[in-house]
Amino acid sequence: MNRYCVIMCGGVGSRFWPFSRTDRPKQFLDFFGTGKSLLQLTVDRISPLVPPENIILVTNHLYEPLIREQLPTIKPENILLEPARRNTAPCICWAAHHIAALDPEAVIVTLPSDHLVLKEKAFEEAIEKGFRFVEQGERLLTLGITPTNPNTGYGYIQQGAPTDDYDEILKVKSFTEKPNLEMAKVFLASKEFFWNSGIFLWSAKSILSAFERYAPDIAHLFDAPADTYSTPKEKEFIDKTFPNAPGISIDYAIMEKANNVYVETVDLGWSDLGTWLALYQASPHNADGNVTQNCKVIASGCRDSIFATSSDKIIVAEGLKDYIVADSENALLIYPLSEEQKIRHIVTEIKSRFGESFT
Amino acid sequence: MNRYCVIMCGGVGSRFWPFSRTDRPKQFLDFFGTGKSLLQLTVDRISPLVPPENIILVTNHLYEPLIREQLPTIKPENILLEPARRNTAPCICWAAHHIAALDPEAVIVTLPSDHLVLKEKAFEEAIEKGFRFVEQGERLLTLGITPTNPNTGYGYIQQGAPTDDYDEILKVKSFTEKPNLEMAKVFLASKEFFWNSGIFLWSAKSILSAFERYAPDIAHLFDAPADTYSTPKEKEFIDKTFPNAPGISIDYAIMEKANNVYVETVDLGWSDLGTWLALYQASPHNADGNVTQNCKVIASGCRDSIFATSSDKIIVAEGLKDYIVADSENALLIYPLSEEQKIRHIVTEIKSRFGESFT
Repeated sequence: MNRYCVIMCGGVGSRFWPFSRTDRPKQFLDFFGTGKSLLQLTVDRISPLVPPENIILVTNHLYEPLIREQLPTIKPENILLEPARRNTAPCICWAAHHIAALDPEAVIVTLPSDHLVLKEKAFEEAIEKGFRFVEQGERLLTLGITPTNPNTGYGYIQQGAPTDDYDEILKVKSFTEKPNLEMAKVFLASKEFFWNSGIFLWSAKSILSAFERYAPDIAHLFDAPADTYSTPKEKEFIDKTFPNAPGISIDYAIMEKANNVYVETVDLGWSDLGTWLALYQASPHNADGNVTQNCKVIASGCRDSIFATSSDKIIVAEGLKDYIVADSENALLIYPLSEEQKIRHIVTEIKSRFGESFT
Repeated sequence: MNRYCVIMCGGVGSRFWPFSRTDRPKQFLDFFGTGKSLLQLTVDRISPLVPPENIILVTNHLYEPLIREQLPTIKPENILLEPARRNTAPCICWAAHHIAALDPEAVIVTLPSDHLVLKEKAFEEAIEKGFRFVEQGERLLTLGITPTNPNTGYGYIQQGAPTDDYDEILKVKSFTEKPNLEMAKVFLASKEFFWNSGIFLWSAKSILSAFERYAPDIAHLFDAPADTYSTPKEKEFIDKTFPNAPGISIDYAIMEKANNVYVETVDLGWSDLGTWLALYQASPHNADGNVTQNCKVIASGCRDSIFATSSDKIIVAEGLKDYIVADSENALLIYPLSEEQKIRHIVTEIKSRFGESFT
């Protein structure tokens, strides 16, 4: 069985403050009160397709205790600890080397750890099909979500020519990261564009050769002597090398440049849960358009708002329209949904004015 | 030393939800983060004037443990436990009997336990003067506060003829409980009216004879054999009798009817802290008119609002005008200050829908 999974779980998630905290980012939270964190749900979701010993977690070294606590059956050697935050490209390059050393014929699905996927069965079928597609050649595959609104928070993938044998897999024509609203509306109307889910499939060989070709600086950094990866020497090498890597995304480093990129169009009931607005949109609304997470709410004259608490709590509110009300431990956010892009900057301000205990 | 103090501390304070809770009403809370509850501050305030063994607390039996915890030096025999809630008249009648049995010549100051008094020195002087006044004859004295705005939540006392020897003490012409706004404005403009502070002075004899004359039903109920009050028989008698008393206020039962009622006009830096609006008005405001209690606040575009938390917490808010934001344990209130009179009804709704743990 040479199918592997890499789960990226080192993000900070500051746009989701105050739920997401520096010492417990959103992937480690039980967001929907199901009894499982988003990370645990991600592992559950991929487990029918990849054996447990082939699931690799890449995270910041700070989160090792949280990973061990939440995923006690994952072996320590399957947890790759980044000594610094460097976005997704260096993370993916390292993981590919690590896996290639274990199995040169490996194919890999790379998953974010903090997204919502409601349709598990469709997810399974899509990943299964994706594995088969990338097992057949040097191809980089990304899962594309049919957009339902002109969201300006996502990356957009333009479809190109169809492929043989796979109706839902198409050549990629272009990538556009976070377009403005006008452009997003044009993309939506054209029906040629898909949201970039951040779920990727490729063989270890394909992605490593793409790094050599399109991001030679990163490829060069991770060029190690033959007995380094997946041996006791790996940690020392990474601790020295990794901080020198540039902090760039895999989309920017590889996907936007490579000419062998494909998109598999899928309907997964997906949200990146990147922001309070995304959570609001992904959640069931009551007659007033309000969303309730985890709490009891008595709201009069409140509309199109999300009320969320991290513990069993009652909220009494009146007259709020288009608001986020989010209460978690020592912090309370009462903020217009339309202004949520400011939240990450406020978190920075809080940290400098009041210290890390509030972030 | 035959000066006594009765502190009434059996109230529920539901208008101050979610800070004030059924099992810990507002008099037991450290409202201003000073390290002392409003009740403890009340005891401190009267201590220069009345010896500790002459301070009597009257409360609901439910709050005995809280009183013992907060006031460990008060002797158990000085805590009178009401077996039922019956407003202030029965409470005051019982306390007068209890004290008269200890000292027939006693004079008594009766204090609410949950008010704010900023000017301690003025308070001391006012009570000292009041004691002297009521020691000289059968007089019922109430402290009246010079009104600063047409507040419709207070009782208003109209001044009558001056008295000999005491510039600040006047005969009372009339009482008006909670007037409408039009009337309150007329009262304010006339300069003849004072807010009823709920602080009363009289001799035990005077108030008991007033009960006989103006509230004979209550007087009759508390008519006990000679060796009942302040003896081991008191509790059994009260547990049987007290629940039969009508639930009415001392203002309505006695003060509005008696012809020997006087008002001492005082400036105490007083607020009854009866509502969030009262707390808002009694607290220092920042340049945007916002009040912060106990918490750190990052507020943009917020005006004339009060932000209060019962623990060290940060609140990030935008766009709130004239709001109460009050967070305490398992409850959060986000409510227009102008609608605060609805809070007590909401608390009733919460209790019936979600149970007592939230109230």
